[in-house]
Amino acid sequence: MKILLPDTIALDPDLPPGWEGAVVDAHAEIPPEHHDADVLVVWAPSREHLASAARVLTQVQLVQSLSAGMDKIVVAGFAPSVRLASGSGLHDRTVCEHTLTLVLSLLRRIPEALAAQGEHRWSRELGGPQELHPADRVTTLIGARVLIWGFGGIAQTMAPLLRALGAEVTGVARSAGTRADTPVHATEELPELLPHTDVLISTLPATEATAGVVDQRVFALLPESSCFVNVGRGTVVDQAALVDALQQGAIRGAAVDVTDPEPLPADSDLWSAPNLLITPHAAGGRPIGAEERIAHNVRALQDGRPLAHEVRR
Amino acid sequence: MKILLPDTIALDPDLPPGWEGAVVDAHAEIPPEHHDADVLVVWAPSREHLASAARVLTQVQLVQSLSAGMDKIVVAGFAPSVRLASGSGLHDRTVCEHTLTLVLSLLRRIPEALAAQGEHRWSRELGGPQELHPADRVTTLIGARVLIWGFGGIAQTMAPLLRALGAEVTGVARSAGTRADTPVHATEELPELLPHTDVLISTLPATEATAGVVDQRVFALLPESSCFVNVGRGTVVDQAALVDALQQGAIRGAAVDVTDPEPLPADSDLWSAPNLLITPHAAGGRPIGAEERIAHNVRALQDGRPLAHEVRR
Repeated sequence: MKILLPDTIALDPDLPPGWEGAVVDAHAEIPPEHHDADVLVVWAPSREHLASAARVLTQVQLVQSLSAGMDKIVVAGFAPSVRLASGSGLHDRTVCEHTLTLVLSLLRRIPEALAAQGEHRWSRELGGPQELHPADRVTTLIGARVLIWGFGGIAQTMAPLLRALGAEVTGVARSAGTRADTPVHATEELPELLPHTDVLISTLPATEATAGVVDQRVFALLPESSCFVNVGRGTVVDQAALVDALQQGAIRGAAVDVTDPEPLPADSDLWSAPNLLITPHAAGGRPIGAEERIAHNVRALQDGRPLAHEVRR
Repeated sequence: MKILLPDTIALDPDLPPGWEGAVVDAHAEIPPEHHDADVLVVWAPSREHLASAARVLTQVQLVQSLSAGMDKIVVAGFAPSVRLASGSGLHDRTVCEHTLTLVLSLLRRIPEALAAQGEHRWSRELGGPQELHPADRVTTLIGARVLIWGFGGIAQTMAPLLRALGAEVTGVARSAGTRADTPVHATEELPELLPHTDVLISTLPATEATAGVVDQRVFALLPESSCFVNVGRGTVVDQAALVDALQQGAIRGAAVDVTDPEPLPADSDLWSAPNLLITPHAAGGRPIGAEERIAHNVRALQDGRPLAHEVRR
């Protein structure tokens, strides 16, 4: 049995007896000597690589991605019998860390401090004695009401950390309930929740249902003192509405790690929107626990047990 | 009995029966009708205010500061019989939050992202698939070795948060031991600790013993991939050595919330040192629990019990 490993990440999974691993160029076609592979692992593959794999890997049983998002793989053309598994969960900790970085950078006014630093200016207005909760802006997570929209692994990793920093955390998702000790409301309740939100964080994936849901109505319902952070997918946000909300002061600030499209073109209005911090899809990109996930799913495949994070097609 | 409260912060402490509170201008002399005060609370006072208080408050028994640093009050000229109490502990959570902001901003390269944003440029080099632990820079707290120099309240608040984010935390202080579940080494052990440090955080106060202790030798012992963050006092750092270390690449980056002097003059070399992030003493400045501290110490004074955070003179 053969598993193909991508050259875009160093991997040495603990494979069961009888399995052989081979490293392939993730930006090239699959070479003929590996057309007999049983499992393909993909990480940051080129479109050509995926298309070639779908065409030539006639024996492949499982495509194991290390990404959480599976949109490109689902449409790559693999036969319906080929099973697909995502890297969901492998990015929870890194994305959570980056989200916290964006939230804190906004609240603690790092962009303003850097701008003043560029002018060799001690920005007295940002330091010294100040109010903990001024009316016009959120300045700290201590006592802040954080609403996380989309309550999967990233949100569940983030909630206890935000609470440890003093925030009151609420979730919003398709189904209500309590997850990671956090009250999660149904999406329909958003109009009641948004006016009582200091920091709104979107972790929503790109689906038909989430396209453009963070729109003008959302920004209008948020307090003018609030911040918005997007670490889900760029398509979730109506970007024109975000620029408008920042220009009009409907919200105090925002940070986005994801945009639509990516890379963001140089002529996008987002670049110069006031009080907006943009990072270049830098939250994840470093799967943690990839070898364990691969080893687990190879064994599960072999033994006929359920795969971790199998994707329904 | 009378307690004078500063007008620089809204305070409504729960005073014992028989006590009357009066608000005074913290940037002016004490008016004659309040020369009979028994307790003076100070927050961000002017030098004139402190000098006047030391001169005219002939009955004052306690000066309660809401600051952690007491240097200005100690030298203000109060009679030796006047007891002094600091606001130590009231700033632990806010300073901890700011410290985390600085650390994460460095590791997640927020200054670089903002610079690229200013050029309307999607900084591919900062995002996408990347190594978790590249040899040349610390990119995450996950697995990072964090050394906190000075292990008082701020460090003890910070240690569990850093661990929750995946860091391995060690302390350095005058006396060794275990505090906040963290191994704390004696200062003499620094030469052995620094080469195994990814992030060095100074929370040291300004004393004769700490003047300039973060010097060229410290930066030389730190790995070139490491970061340094100072949220203690500016005098602790040999600033010329810091600029040199950044210019020479002895360390990867640094962030300072405190400088010497403050405000930092426009001609300081710090402003344009590479990979340095400066915030204008913005970490604290928002005492949390001030009313409880005042009420506690007024009762303690009245009952002859030990004061919280009394300062030896």
